[in-house]
Order: sequence, then structure tokens, then C-alpha cells
Amino acid sequence: MSFTNRRVRIRNLTPEVDCGRWPAKRSRSELVECEADVFADSHDLVRAVLHWRTEDQRHWTEVPMTHLEQDRWHASFRPAALGLHTFRVLGWIDRAATWQRDLRTKLEADVAGEVDLLRGVELVDDALVDCHEPDQAGLRALRDRLADTHAPLAERGEAALTDASTGLLARNDPRVAVTTSEARAIRVDRDKARFSAWYELFPRSTAPEPGAHGTFDDVIARLPYVAGMGFDVLYLPPIHPIGTTHRKGPNNRAGAGPHDPGSPWAIGSTEGGHTAIHPRLGDRDGFRRLLDACAEHGLELALDIAFQCSPDHPWVREHPEWFRRRPDGGIQYAENPPKKYQDIYPLDFETRDPEGLWQALRGVFEHWIAEGVRIFRVDNPHTKSFAFWEWCVAELAREHPDMILLSEAFTRPIVMYELARLGFTQSYTYFAWRHRKDEFEAYYRELFQTEVVEYFRANSWPNTPDILTGYLQDGGRPAFEQRLVLAATLTANYGVYGPVYELMHHRARPGVEEYLDNEKYEIHHWDLDPPPPLYDLISRVNRIRRDHPALQQDRNFEVHHIANDELLAFSKASHDLDDVVLVVVNLDTSSRQAGVTRLDLARLGLADDAGTEFEVHDLLDDARYLWRGPENYVELDPRTAPAHIFHVRPRQPHVSPAGGGG
Amino acid sequence: MSFTNRRVRIRNLTPEVDCGRWPAKRSRSELVECEADVFADSHDLVRAVLHWRTEDQRHWTEVPMTHLEQDRWHASFRPAALGLHTFRVLGWIDRAATWQRDLRTKLEADVAGEVDLLRGVELVDDALVDCHEPDQAGLRALRDRLADTHAPLAERGEAALTDASTGLLARNDPRVAVTTSEARAIRVDRDKARFSAWYELFPRSTAPEPGAHGTFDDVIARLPYVAGMGFDVLYLPPIHPIGTTHRKGPNNRAGAGPHDPGSPWAIGSTEGGHTAIHPRLGDRDGFRRLLDACAEHGLELALDIAFQCSPDHPWVREHPEWFRRRPDGGIQYAENPPKKYQDIYPLDFETRDPEGLWQALRGVFEHWIAEGVRIFRVDNPHTKSFAFWEWCVAELAREHPDMILLSEAFTRPIVMYELARLGFTQSYTYFAWRHRKDEFEAYYRELFQTEVVEYFRANSWPNTPDILTGYLQDGGRPAFEQRLVLAATLTANYGVYGPVYELMHHRARPGVEEYLDNEKYEIHHWDLDPPPPLYDLISRVNRIRRDHPALQQDRNFEVHHIANDELLAFSKASHDLDDVVLVVVNLDTSSRQAGVTRLDLARLGLADDAGTEFEVHDLLDDARYLWRGPENYVELDPRTAPAHIFHVRPRQPHVSPAGGGG
Repeated sequence: MSFTNRRVRIRNLTPEVDCGRWPAKRSRSELVECEADVFADSHDLVRAVLHWRTEDQRHWTEVPMTHLEQDRWHASFRPAALGLHTFRVLGWIDRAATWQRDLRTKLEADVAGEVDLLRGVELVDDALVDCHEPDQAGLRALRDRLADTHAPLAERGEAALTDASTGLLARNDPRVAVTTSEARAIRVDRDKARFSAWYELFPRSTAPEPGAHGTFDDVIARLPYVAGMGFDVLYLPPIHPIGTTHRKGPNNRAGAGPHDPGSPWAIGSTEGGHTAIHPRLGDRDGFRRLLDACAEHGLELALDIAFQCSPDHPWVREHPEWFRRRPDGGIQYAENPPKKYQDIYPLDFETRDPEGLWQALRGVFEHWIAEGVRIFRVDNPHTKSFAFWEWCVAELAREHPDMILLSEAFTRPIVMYELARLGFTQSYTYFAWRHRKDEFEAYYRELFQTEVVEYFRANSWPNTPDILTGYLQDGGRPAFEQRLVLAATLTANYGVYGPVYELMHHRARPGVEEYLDNEKYEIHHWDLDPPPPLYDLISRVNRIRRDHPALQQDRNFEVHHIANDELLAFSKASHDLDDVVLVVVNLDTSSRQAGVTRLDLARLGLADDAGTEFEVHDLLDDARYLWRGPENYVELDPRTAPAHIFHVRPRQPHVSPAGGGG
Repeated sequence: MSFTNRRVRIRNLTPEVDCGRWPAKRSRSELVECEADVFADSHDLVRAVLHWRTEDQRHWTEVPMTHLEQDRWHASFRPAALGLHTFRVLGWIDRAATWQRDLRTKLEADVAGEVDLLRGVELVDDALVDCHEPDQAGLRALRDRLADTHAPLAERGEAALTDASTGLLARNDPRVAVTTSEARAIRVDRDKARFSAWYELFPRSTAPEPGAHGTFDDVIARLPYVAGMGFDVLYLPPIHPIGTTHRKGPNNRAGAGPHDPGSPWAIGSTEGGHTAIHPRLGDRDGFRRLLDACAEHGLELALDIAFQCSPDHPWVREHPEWFRRRPDGGIQYAENPPKKYQDIYPLDFETRDPEGLWQALRGVFEHWIAEGVRIFRVDNPHTKSFAFWEWCVAELAREHPDMILLSEAFTRPIVMYELARLGFTQSYTYFAWRHRKDEFEAYYRELFQTEVVEYFRANSWPNTPDILTGYLQDGGRPAFEQRLVLAATLTANYGVYGPVYELMHHRARPGVEEYLDNEKYEIHHWDLDPPPPLYDLISRVNRIRRDHPALQQDRNFEVHHIANDELLAFSKASHDLDDVVLVVVNLDTSSRQAGVTRLDLARLGLADDAGTEFEVHDLLDDARYLWRGPENYVELDPRTAPAHIFHVRPRQPHVSPAGGGG
């Protein structure tokens, strides 16, 4: 390292992930708040600025930083585009401000001397070199005043301490010995990456006639139903041709009958692979009609990307090198010993042709992106090489910064976090298996109050085609209502697999957390007229989410104490606490529960005082209550409602018009 | 990034500081325990090894890692030398172990087939390429067995699952597609860096005759006293010539009288600067006699490095460019407005000659290192450029890895931590200002149970020439005893400024935390016969520290609950919990306090059970008690003892010799 006169150090930049190894995530309309510790030796004051730019911009935009406390500095910027932004911090000794501070102290103690004013003259001279032209006159006048030995010293000193003088000096700071931090990256996604409500359905089960195979046009007819509930993402399981070899029958039975449709995840047949459409769903024109219809209904289509092949997939014949060969010459099917999944061939990421394989997989995404799709739910990414995903996601994100990728990885935390860090936009979570209050508090504190929130966007699902928990199997309607409210209020992104959810189907195959007569293996016919029992609750909750920015983000989250282990209380708030929502959920599906809160009023944007009055408006049943201070009584009966979703409003001060009371 | 078949990822290496930006610190005889998350996609098993080496070694030493839980792997190594060591982790898919695991499962479920054994043959063939010569026969035999289609399949499979077969395969793993982590650095210091007891005295106050100026030979006569108390570092304030211009008189009075010696920190006169010796202390021969005598007494000398100059320092005349020039042509003295310290000229790290200044300052260290000194207490490093320290400490540490630098920076936490990160071996702390139980618990958790412990070695001082807290001013003997026990047991490094400490001097200058008639400004004469009141306690405590490895480290530290806010309970333990010490301190200097513990038995190396019996042996008064479970009664009377220092011993099982009781 070289001998330097740079005395400023810059540390602990935020937001950052793994000390800057990965970009942090933000969405298009989020203010990006940056902080850093900027400090030097001794007692001199420092000044800091933030530089930021998009990938496409040649020049940095500069934003002055404000001093918070101790050595912490802050600035914010609004993203200028989708895609990568970088920022860095610059700091230097603020000689002028240091001199002003010390001069002020000396004048107050009456120990200022001529030499102190001479120092000011030096600083003004430095500022005059390359000063802003409009400031030149003011700086010269200040210099003359400071140098005027005929005038009283104190007056000359005071002249240098006015706001005008401070402005002149600050604007024309020559910035000596600037320290520049490392750069940090932010990946800016669409707002929908931050806030979305997903609805999953099986297209083949949307035919109006029982037993018929649904088409894209049948799905179009289902859109008013889905949009009517307030969802904005329509997610379809894989829409590709399904293999016949070793096809599974109903309830995952080995050996399908002639009419059994097979699992949509057993992708590929003579009719094509990952870029083809299952002929019974429709064709490219039908797919495009569906895309257009979604847009008309305020929905966006999400496709399922499952990188695995049935034995009939064209790649098996065309690229045997992409699969693992068994010693007996056959292709290795999926296994989780002792179980065998002979209808699935996993791809071999140890192939001798990684480039060919990776480009083909990327090409699948590119194909559907070219068709107009921008949202993909990725099946089991943790069974494919991370190196592949890191490359593929970066390539796709650079070309298509409006893309959203949802990672479906129910596995060990480090793997889930690795996938999120390397670029997946959203991620499924352990939500379905969190039941107790302490479990919720610990898990969501980890997701929202640690570095995890910088890169992992949680997407909560109470059910999926693979997950029907014992809680839903046994809990009855109150369980369905409770889990729905939890998923939709804990996280800004959530999803539901329907219509089995709103129909409250709860029967499982014996011994497993899986639906009986799973739609994965057979076509169903759903009668949705009249609308299912939970249709109204889901509609209401989605409307509450759309009306409340507090529920459209995850960063501002707090757990509140409530003296009952069956009652979970948490709040979410928009930036600047403009909109605050307090949720209280009864975790007991069979009994009424009551308790007294001990609210963290400051986190609710209220004065931290026992006398603070405020209104809580229950957005579910429209009731309003006047609360006071941290301790307030709540009760919930599962037969009536699973939760309170309170909009928290400071009590309006009573203003009397002239001449009368209100 | 290139297309790769490497599937393993390696993350979260420890120990690390700031994701590897700085080396972590260890001492020569500490086991370096390393961990990393090593994982891949899918369900294949991984294997990991640790590589480590010193700076001088060309080749890595390899250590197999053991799997802890989830994806965490562990290995350790013993440092081979002082100085920088680096380590890295390598991971790869363990094909053989994966195959063995799956084969075992399939055999148990009776679904293993010929193809599974064929896979084993492939793996053995891979192992045979480049195998260890002694293993060749065993591998061939295993291959033959697996391939022997005449033998029963299950037997052939079982042959591949024996320990011997596992060993053959593991030792000859071809290690395909290895992922190598980034390297991490460890700075290995002497054991004394981890565990030391410092005693500070003013040499000039060691003359046997009152009023005389002490010499190095007088200090030699003081060594039995210091060593007798059990200290192992003797730290002297600056031993250089003292300036006369603006010399301070007693109690920091402006204007010294003709006999006032001035502050040792006002360094430099016509008699020399930082590489010279104050003529009244002695000469180079005297200094070397002192060094030798220290060694004979089991002490090591530490010098004070204070990079500042009196106006009379030779550098002022020889290198005016190293000082800040005032606008009126004079040199800028130290200021903390409105205070002026005209006897001190700070160095200007914005000099136009940084290389000249930095080399000269490094040269000061090199001079005293050449004289035989290896320990330096650095005065106010936070008022000198961090860039300078980063360079200087790295240069010195590389040439002299046995050097110990103690940072005296009482300033903001981020500055203290920055100095430690960039290389200071030990650091003063906020100890003197921690009084309440909650303050202690929070501060020492921060120091010992966060990443801070990887780079910041705390050195606790209850007093210094600049610090006489109100607590000691007002608390009487119990306060002195309490603070001594706290400093000496909380941290493995501690120090005391004497003999004012053991004499319990407590009078301060009005309104400041500073000694009245401070030794900084005048010569004292200390009568140490008979030994001062605290001599025995200090001796006893230093002996306890030397007898107990638990107190010679800071990593294993735990706070224990005790139901009395005036009683602080904490434990320290050696690696592997061989030696465990539980300290209970009475923070009330005037009243007896009692309470019941709620011990974390596991952290004390005991079975976590209410019935666990163990002995606690109070090392201060030799009392022994039989305790049981987590809850035990303690009481402390400040008139008797400030604390219990309990050695915790599991109760020995009672073993009866043949024929009789014990």
C-alpha cells in the first residue's frame, strides 16, 4: 500500500449482502436508504457523499450524506430503472466545518486569536480556487472581512459562522484527500417482485364439462373468478407435453391407465419438451390469447420451470450426454433411496457438455420470455447446480430486468438463502410448518430483521399441490381462514393453490402431507358457482392488502407482546410510518382466546406514552375501537374471525370551528 | 464465469473478520478451530478438507474436515509459527460415500440391483487410477467381489460397506470437480498476547531517596516487588528526554518551576527524541541492564510509544514539514478547543512527505526492537492516521511476529475496533466506566460473544495515570478490591498502574477523573515496605490466573443468572471445559449482598440436571462448598471479600477400594 495522506475510513456500508459479494434487492418504487460509517483519526469533522448510478449510466449521481449519530452517515436515492445499480461512499476531512466549529468554541470562550482568522483566510483561498462562479464574490467578501485587521476580531469571526458563509464554504470545498469506498450493488426489480398475490391452478381442470381436459380458453373463462378474488399473478404448473413411459396414475400409482393424464412435471414426449405446449391445452395462439386475457383482467401469467425430463423427452434422444448414464447403459432416473421415480430423468450437471446444457436451459427461459412471460416459478432449484443458476439468473436478469423468478426450494436454510443470494427474486418459505407463536416470532424475525431481508423475498403459501399439512387436514374452516390471513399479512408476497384451498379440501393420502386424489395425477372438475366458502374472505384480505402500503413490504415488521401464547401480534408499516397495520391472529382453531397487548407504540408511529390514544379499525369486520397506551384487550373467537387486521390511526386532535363544538 | 461441473459451494468460513478483509487473531498455543458451510445441490454427500500454511511454507497442510450438523464442517490445526497463517476449504461431491449410503438403504429395503453394484465397480475403477500403492490390492479385491455375479448380491453389496472398504474408497477418492474457497488469514501472536498481567510504574519515582529522580537501576531494585505480585509485563511511560518549552508543572499547571520534571509524554529536547533516553533515567547500558534484569525476574519490558513532540524535539527543527504550520508561521500545537496544549506538537499526517514521516515513525519502533523490546503500549493511536498504522503494524508484524502492541484509544467504538482490526494486538477498553450489572453483561457479551472476539483482545485497567474514576475516589478499599478482581478475571489481559493502585490512592483533582498530584507532572517517593494494603490480594489473584487456564482466555465466557442486581456472575472455561472458573462479584461496595444463582450448567461442563452435584472451591479464601443443580445460594460482604472466584469441579464418583469404604 502506498504512503497516503488520506485519513478518512469508510466501513459497514448498507445495504450489503456478505460484505458486498451479492447485490442487495430493492424494488422500483422503494427508496434505497444507504448508510456507512465514515470516520477519521483525531477530532476533525468529516463530510460524506453518496455516488450511485445504473449499469447504463456513465456518470455517478452525487447525493450529500447527512450525519446520523456517532460516525454513521445516511443518504437515499430512488432507483432510476430496473436492473443493477451501484453505489459507493466518498469521505474527506471537512477542513472548513472543522475550523468553524473550533472558531465558534474559541469565540464563546473568548480565546480566539488573529491566527484563527488567518486560518479562515487560508480556507477561503482554497475554496476560491475552482469555486462556483456565482459564489466567487461572496467568498472574496468573506476573505476580505476575515483579513480586515481594523475590525473587531469577534465580529470578523462571527461573519464566518453565518449560514451564508457555511454555504459558501461547503459548496466550494476543495475536497482534499478523498477516500472512496468499495462499490456495492443493488438489484432493482419491479414492484411486483416486492408485492404480489399468486393463485395456482391446474389448467386441465378448468373445463366446464366434468372429465374433459381443460384448455387455455377454459382458463380464460376462469380469469374473472381469480381476478375477482384480487390475485395478480396466475401461476400454472408446467404446460408442456407429458411423458407416457412410467406415467403415474391417480394418487401416484405406478402404472397409469389409458386415460390418466400423468403429472405435468414429467415433462416431454414425442410432441415436444420444455418449449412445446401440451396439445390438449392448446397451441401457441391459444397461449397468446390467454396472455392477453390475463392482462385485461389485471393478472400476469407465471409459468413453472422444472428442469427435468420424462423418458420420452426429445433431449433424452438428442442429448444423452445431458443425463447420467447407469453402468448398465440405461439412463439414471430420479431416486431418493429406496424410492425410485422412473418417470423422471434428472439432468446431469456433471455432464461433459456444461455449456451446451446450460445454454439449452437458458434457452427455455428465453423461449417463454419471447412469448411474453416474465414470471417463472422454478421447481426444486436446489436439485440443480448453483453455479448454473448463478450464471443463468445473471444472464436473464441483465437482458430482462423485469423478470421475476420464484424459487421453490423446501430444503435446508443455507441452500434456500444461497439461491436467494445468487439471484432468485422471491422464495417459498417454511411458512406452512410454522404453527406456534414462538416459531412464528423467531422465523419472521430471522427473515425480516436480519441481513436476510436484503436478499430473500419471502412468498408464503399455506398449501401447494405437494403440501397439505396436518394443520389444514384437521383444523376445519378456522384453520383455513387463519392460515390465509397469516400468509397474506406476514409477507407482502403470498400465494394459494386453488380452488382446493377456498373449497377447503382437507383429505390427505394416508401418512403423507399430500392431497388425496391429487390434481397432479388426475383431472378434476371444480364447481365454483356459487363461489366457494373462502372466496369472500380471500377477496376481502386481498383488497385490504391493496389498500394498505404497510402490507406491501416486509422491512418494517415488528412483533408485539401479548400475554397469551395462542395470540400472535405483529405490525407492519410503510416507510415513514404513514400506514400502519397491526395484526392479531388466534392460533387456536377451536377456542376463543383473549389477552392484553403490550404494544411497542413507537413502532406503530405513536407517542411512547401510557396516555397515547389511537383508533384501531378492524379491516375485516369494520369495527372501530379506541385504544390507549400499550395495554389493550383483544379477543378472537375462531367461529367468528381468525384475526384482527387493525389499521392503526393516531387519534385526530379535536378542532372546534369558530363558535361551536364538534 | 465459465461453464463448470463444480457443484459444491463453500460459505461462511470461520474464523473471519469482515468476510475475510482482516486476519483473525489467535495465539501460539491455541488450537485454531475452523468451520465452513460446504454444500451442493440435490442429496449427494460432500467431503471437505482444510488446507493451511504459514507465510513461509510453500505447500498446504491438509486436514480432513468432520461433518458437524446440517452443512457445517469443522477442522482444526495448531499454529506452526508466529505470524500469518492462511487457510482455505476444499469441497467436492463424495461419489463413493454417496453410493455406499444409497446402497445400504437399498439393501435394507431389498431393492438393490445388479446395476447398483456395477456402479460400485465404476467407482473402484476410478479409485484405482492413481491409487495409493498399498491400497491397490485391496481395491482390486473389492472390485472383483463387486463384479462377481456368481455370488449373492447382498453379500457382494455388504462387502463394499465394511469399514475397510470405506477406508479404501475414501483414501483413494479421485476428488472430481473440487471447489476451493477463498483463503482466510489468521495472525498468530505469542501466548503473552492472549494472557498477560501488566504493571505500570514511573521509573523516576523509584529512587530510594525522597525527591531524587529514579533511574533504570532503581527500577531494577523494584522488580522483585512487581514480580512478587505476579505481574509479567512491566510497562513504563515514555523514557525519552522531556521538552522544557511550555513544560507543565504539578497538577498540569502552566509554567513549570526549575525542578519540575514535566510530563514524560512531552517528548523531545536538545538531548534527543523518540530514540533517545532521558539522561536522568540512565543510558543505553542502564537500559540493557534493566531489560536483562526483567528477564531474570520473569518480567518483560513494555515501552510507551507516543507519536507527538514537545516544541524542543529535534524533528521540529529537522523536519518542519512533519508538523502543521499555522498561518502566522508558527507550528500548530495540540488543541481541543477551547483547551490548548502548548507543550505538545502533534504530527501532521497530511504532510507532503508521508513516506518520510511514516518511515521515521516506523524507525522508532525498529530502534527499540533492536534494543530488545517486543511490547509497546501505543499512546492515543486514534489521533494518528489509520492508514499509517495499517502500514506500520503490518510491516512490523511481518519482521517481528513476536511483537505485541497495546492500543490506548478511549474513543468511539468503531475507532477502537478499527485499530484492533488493522492489527493492534491488544486494546484498552471501557472497563473503568462499567459499573452496573447490565452494563457489564452487555459489554462483555459484545467483546466475547460476537465477531469482536476474533480481532479485539481486551486489556482491562481499573486505573491509569489519566483515569481515577469516581467509583475509586469514593468507594474505599472495597471498590479497589472489587475492580481489581473484575479486571483480572473478566479479561485474560489486564493491567494496573501502581503503586498508587495497591496503595489505594483516591484523591482527585477537583472536577476531573484524574489523580491529585499526578505522577505525570511530579516525582513521587513510594514507601513500599511493608507492602501496600492490596499487595496480598493482587498476588493471590495473579496466582489464581496463572493456575487456571480458564482465566487465560476470553472466548469461552458466559453470563449466569443470579437474582440480585448487585451480584454479577460469569464463568470462563478452557477449551474442552477442562478448567472452569465461576466468578461472582458484589457490585455493592457498602452492603452485604446475597442471592440465588440460576447457572447454565452445560457451560460449566456439568450435566444439565437439577440433581447434578459439584464442588465449588473459592480460590480466594480456600472455602469449599458442595453445590447442586443450577440454583445455589451465594453471599458476599464487601468488608470480607469483593468476590468469589470459584473453581468448579464435578463431584468425583465415590470409588470404594476392595474391602473398604473411602
